[in-house]
Amino acid sequence: MMKKRQFLKRFGVGSLFATLVTLSVSAPSLADSDQTYRWSLLTSWPKNFPGLGVAPENFAKMVDDMSGGRLKIRVFGAGEVVPGFEVFDAISNGTAEMGHSGSYYWKGKLPAAQFFAAIPFGMTASETNGWLQYGGGMALWEELYRPHGVVPLAAGSTGTQMGGWFNKEINSIEDLEGLKMRIPGLGGEVLSRAGGVPVSLPGGEIFTALQTGAIDAVEWVGPYNDRAFGLNTAAQYYYYPGWHEPGSMFEFIVNEEAFQTLPEDLQAIVRQAAKTASYDMLVEYDARNIEALNQLQESGVELRRFPEDLLQKLQGYADEVVQELAEQDPMATRIYESYRAYQQGAAAYNHVAEQAYIETRGQ
Amino acid sequence: MMKKRQFLKRFGVGSLFATLVTLSVSAPSLADSDQTYRWSLLTSWPKNFPGLGVAPENFAKMVDDMSGGRLKIRVFGAGEVVPGFEVFDAISNGTAEMGHSGSYYWKGKLPAAQFFAAIPFGMTASETNGWLQYGGGMALWEELYRPHGVVPLAAGSTGTQMGGWFNKEINSIEDLEGLKMRIPGLGGEVLSRAGGVPVSLPGGEIFTALQTGAIDAVEWVGPYNDRAFGLNTAAQYYYYPGWHEPGSMFEFIVNEEAFQTLPEDLQAIVRQAAKTASYDMLVEYDARNIEALNQLQESGVELRRFPEDLLQKLQGYADEVVQELAEQDPMATRIYESYRAYQQGAAAYNHVAEQAYIETRGQ
Repeated sequence: MMKKRQFLKRFGVGSLFATLVTLSVSAPSLADSDQTYRWSLLTSWPKNFPGLGVAPENFAKMVDDMSGGRLKIRVFGAGEVVPGFEVFDAISNGTAEMGHSGSYYWKGKLPAAQFFAAIPFGMTASETNGWLQYGGGMALWEELYRPHGVVPLAAGSTGTQMGGWFNKEINSIEDLEGLKMRIPGLGGEVLSRAGGVPVSLPGGEIFTALQTGAIDAVEWVGPYNDRAFGLNTAAQYYYYPGWHEPGSMFEFIVNEEAFQTLPEDLQAIVRQAAKTASYDMLVEYDARNIEALNQLQESGVELRRFPEDLLQKLQGYADEVVQELAEQDPMATRIYESYRAYQQGAAAYNHVAEQAYIETRGQ
Repeated sequence: MMKKRQFLKRFGVGSLFATLVTLSVSAPSLADSDQTYRWSLLTSWPKNFPGLGVAPENFAKMVDDMSGGRLKIRVFGAGEVVPGFEVFDAISNGTAEMGHSGSYYWKGKLPAAQFFAAIPFGMTASETNGWLQYGGGMALWEELYRPHGVVPLAAGSTGTQMGGWFNKEINSIEDLEGLKMRIPGLGGEVLSRAGGVPVSLPGGEIFTALQTGAIDAVEWVGPYNDRAFGLNTAAQYYYYPGWHEPGSMFEFIVNEEAFQTLPEDLQAIVRQAAKTASYDMLVEYDARNIEALNQLQESGVELRRFPEDLLQKLQGYADEVVQELAEQDPMATRIYESYRAYQQGAAAYNHVAEQAYIETRGQ
């Protein structure tokens, strides 16, 4: 289908039209509705990384389709423009218009940002979506980023992450003593209080570290991403359900000035496409995880469960860690209180609704 | 912001431009990109009914915003144009371009359509979304409606519905013997096989039937909608978790010819806005249910759980009912097989992922 701009060009009315436009004070609105915007979107992942890298590509395609090509967004992998951990600054200072990342990466600058990513023993993905949209979470997130000229938008979840791969069965809290485990962030801090040794390792080094026995355990994401890394083939490991990232949420971040220069229809398209990409990522992770878990089980992976009393102790440490985070600044306190209140209500409802049903249905 | 059409009008270049256009065979593409489309959307609910009636209004607003006003969709309540149960035919025959309804209403014409609405002991909302998008479900739904010139789009879920309000505690399957309960569809058929008496009652008559004791039990939706109807104040009733509609899904339906006449960018906008409205409805239901359950509990509602052996017996009857539905025609068989395979994988994954976590977290 030929677009108006092409038509104007082909039939030579562009210059006539442009002349008319320059006579009018209303010119900007015409320029807006016809102008093509070209944006860069910087991510913290390798280009096209399964799941995480797919969401921003889907987003860019949706925006292109819905805008009839008036907003073109080019997606860059980590390191192509700036390193993955510098995406926030790059969006804040206008190096690029948009980013796709995780808010826990900005904890050095904004400790409270971690509440919008992953809280040990915190909310699931669907609960987090409810909190953001109807429980006041999104307004707090916007308030946190506003001084930096950055607009946050929810950008997808992996769902409940698995607890990881262990080179021995974990039967009590003592089995965590001295355990060297790749586990970042707040979850790592919890492990440390339980006597373990959290290790920081980029994704690309995990397989080798497992295979050589340099570490005893690792958590990465879940069946889909874990299997893509071949973690099930690195050694004979036991695979456990998770507690540390129950509903990891990612973020689109937009340079506020760039956002304001868009005409209103393109602003609406960016917001809705982000929302759809966010929801889609969770649905895709769920679907791919189902398939991958099935394949893992066929390949002989040993699934285990942590004992109940160990989990209760971890939850106690997690409460301490999150409480300390909440006390770091007044904004962290406000976000924590909002988060916690929503989680309590959500857990009570879940208990009589979906959770009650799933227990009923059995496996 | 002034739109191009307004500009053309105000500065009198419309007719000049139109003249140029008529000289060109490419005129339709210009007409497309500038034309305003006006659609009607017929629903099966009262106008602005909480939850169900909100989703199509949100959808229409999103489309308006994203299209810069080029696609205007007017939403009609049940009975305003056609009765609620005639929406499918009205879209099929072109009375209106679009509808918002539930596929189980078309079971007389298309028994297999029920798989896209609510299956007792079937999939949850998130599992259903996964099946539709990644498990082949959507392609089957499209195939089912294609001979009728109707395009289906997922249009939101209430989440797991509650099992309902009962005038006595239900301690065994015998307590269902002769029980007069408002419960429609496949769930009603299951109750009937368990010795109960399913009663069909429109929403507006439920409160009075409960209050006068004309019926012994009722299921409606969940805390949010149930409380809006005042079911907790009708009489002293016990409130139970559900099994009959674990992930009720609704539908947008579009007249295929009308859809094809839209330019590609508006088609993309309709598809993505429907997706977002669909996901949003579930998130909104979850959030409103959390709040409403809290209020119900404060008002003294007595929550109970069905005994495990009763649920197992109901599940046995449900398996029979769904199996018989699957045998009604070859399309129903294919959809059933796809549905069942996805549910098995989803249940296995849920068991080690979110479900395992939620059990861990406790309430």
